[in-house]
Amino acid sequence: MYKLKCITCGTIYDPEPNMYTCPKCGERYGTLEVIFNYDLINVKKSDFDKHGDISQFSKILPITEYKVKQVVGNTPTYEFKNYYGIKKVFFKYDGTNPTSSYKDRASAIAISKAYEYGYDTIYCASTGNAASSLAGLSAPTDLKTFIFVPKNIPIAKLAQLHVFGANVILVDGNYDQAFDISTKVGKKLNWYSRNSAINPYLLEGKKTGAMELAVQLDFEVPDIVFVSAGDGTVISSIYKGFYDFYNLNLIQKIPKIIGIQAKGADAIAKTFSNGKPYTPVDIIPNTIADSISVGKPRDVIKACKYVEKSGGTFLTVNDEEIKTAIFELAKNTGIFAEPAGAAAYAGFKKAISMDLLKKEDTVAIFITGNGLKDIKAVQDNIKINPIPPVFEKIIEYINGVKK
Amino acid sequence: MYKLKCITCGTIYDPEPNMYTCPKCGERYGTLEVIFNYDLINVKKSDFDKHGDISQFSKILPITEYKVKQVVGNTPTYEFKNYYGIKKVFFKYDGTNPTSSYKDRASAIAISKAYEYGYDTIYCASTGNAASSLAGLSAPTDLKTFIFVPKNIPIAKLAQLHVFGANVILVDGNYDQAFDISTKVGKKLNWYSRNSAINPYLLEGKKTGAMELAVQLDFEVPDIVFVSAGDGTVISSIYKGFYDFYNLNLIQKIPKIIGIQAKGADAIAKTFSNGKPYTPVDIIPNTIADSISVGKPRDVIKACKYVEKSGGTFLTVNDEEIKTAIFELAKNTGIFAEPAGAAAYAGFKKAISMDLLKKEDTVAIFITGNGLKDIKAVQDNIKINPIPPVFEKIIEYINGVKK
Repeated sequence: MYKLKCITCGTIYDPEPNMYTCPKCGERYGTLEVIFNYDLINVKKSDFDKHGDISQFSKILPITEYKVKQVVGNTPTYEFKNYYGIKKVFFKYDGTNPTSSYKDRASAIAISKAYEYGYDTIYCASTGNAASSLAGLSAPTDLKTFIFVPKNIPIAKLAQLHVFGANVILVDGNYDQAFDISTKVGKKLNWYSRNSAINPYLLEGKKTGAMELAVQLDFEVPDIVFVSAGDGTVISSIYKGFYDFYNLNLIQKIPKIIGIQAKGADAIAKTFSNGKPYTPVDIIPNTIADSISVGKPRDVIKACKYVEKSGGTFLTVNDEEIKTAIFELAKNTGIFAEPAGAAAYAGFKKAISMDLLKKEDTVAIFITGNGLKDIKAVQDNIKINPIPPVFEKIIEYINGVKK
Repeated sequence: MYKLKCITCGTIYDPEPNMYTCPKCGERYGTLEVIFNYDLINVKKSDFDKHGDISQFSKILPITEYKVKQVVGNTPTYEFKNYYGIKKVFFKYDGTNPTSSYKDRASAIAISKAYEYGYDTIYCASTGNAASSLAGLSAPTDLKTFIFVPKNIPIAKLAQLHVFGANVILVDGNYDQAFDISTKVGKKLNWYSRNSAINPYLLEGKKTGAMELAVQLDFEVPDIVFVSAGDGTVISSIYKGFYDFYNLNLIQKIPKIIGIQAKGADAIAKTFSNGKPYTPVDIIPNTIADSISVGKPRDVIKACKYVEKSGGTFLTVNDEEIKTAIFELAKNTGIFAEPAGAAAYAGFKKAISMDLLKKEDTVAIFITGNGLKDIKAVQDNIKINPIPPVFEKIIEYINGVKK
């Protein structure tokens, strides 16, 4: 029903359980695309439900059976008219997923594939949303889960993993060391890998965000889409979701994709702006936006190629812009986003300031995680003095506030 | 379309903007019930959608127009068969609401009422979910919001309020002082009150949780429902939701309601076990379960009367049982609950151990808040040693874990 194609050399492979990346091009250049024969996929607009979870896209997903208990997807899309002078702005908010981030869309597919291939154990290396997502979604299944985390992981994130009953391996080293040892161990023990970019099916899970948006907008997709980018898989997936729908004649165009990176973690933006052939530029990341704080993005080639195909580009925003965006987004829309999610909104504002948007555009902004996942970015901004519980003092304060 | 009836003296009042509690019976004994003439409400099962948000219950809500932008409700219900030997156990998980708690159901109605009555400002005193919920849902409206919080509020919760742009009044005193001064100021400045129990419409918003469960279960309601109780409004609302549906001939029975309180905050349980006439027993609360850590429950009379009518009772669980419940619930179901939410699950287990449940029972457990709202209850339980990133050492560790 589908094949795997190398993003660099274009070799086409039949899918096999142990096939993750192109053996010829390696893990960095050889990430794989899932390609479908669209003629064999029989879907029409009325097959889809505005309130459906991601299992409704099963016919366009590389799985034989959807195996996840929780409701993944069916996240809200909010419309604001004449927002910053733009005709229609849609906010797609994925913080209401089971573990409160976009990553649940990927983990759901990884778990389904693990079952399909008969694995009893699934693993990943991560410090963040991918880890909690895998731990949470696999909790009510009978899969064993191992999460490799670096020693400096915040205690709160470690706690979340334990709560879901995942086996946590605290590696006495940094993230890269945890990642490398996880791959070695996973291969040796024949575990299924949920490491981002390495596993081509994760992107397929994530593409459901774009498809869901299209369904919720009655298949009238926006002109331009803003999405934050770390390792490059989410942004690639947004393109792929629209691409599949376009090829299935469900939508009339593919939106321009604008990738937003933190200034302190702009490896993909740098690679993109250097032009073709895309050659990964790695950096030492430094940004408050944890989930997109990536120095060596594993899906950089795909991200650059897809964004280019869409007619889009990359923009960067600094940490101050991200912080401001968290507050403004929450105040204007009621969405409390984690820093990586708010980065997309900061990028939208940057595009406005650069006159990249037209009044008559329709725009969608993907907000990929719940602000409760990372409150340290906002709590420093709070300065407030206590007031005695005395009527006159309180009234005086309120009169000051109201002006 | 509806009237207000005092829970103690039974006097019936026509609703008025400034009417919160019965003037004869006072704030504690005189909380009001919203009563409908069910003959005038024309609804049938097919009017309701398993994926609808709470606005679908508008005909059975005391509002003229639903005015909230975010998707409140449409939270998942998960079914587990033969769970602890019980035929069917349903978990109703409200952590996916806009601000990640059950309280959004109440705030949505409070905001709609504030608009209906022409108020420009809405307020509450709170340190927790009610505050963030009001701040979050009112953010994209043009209502001004004032939140009175005691000085000792955790910085994380304070941050969340600021993010949504609410005006925060940090009262140099405890919660009771903040509550009392908020009421005085609110009355004086003619603001709308979202203080729990005092405002009878909050319970009406919360009752949608029971109605939604009924709709999702094809109107076959469970035999027994577990729900945690703090000030008594949520548990009363669960009864009221089923009661309304029963009187509208949509369901065939009202489930037994089992209220779960933390041992350190068992004011309602004590009042209930002392028997009729219910006389509030106040205590000094001490429990890790913030959201139900209430010493002077404001809806205690209603909670006792409704639970009695349902044929249910109250049980208490200690903090250790609540902590254990968080982990077990997460592991078994994939739901990461805040302590108050997990208390209901701990109560379910207590009921099992007391032989209160029969094999053929169907049971529902309300999980009222997302664990990300309060991680301190779990992080102390984490003890784990780092392992060097050496293949053999990691394998050795894994072999130990697998046994």
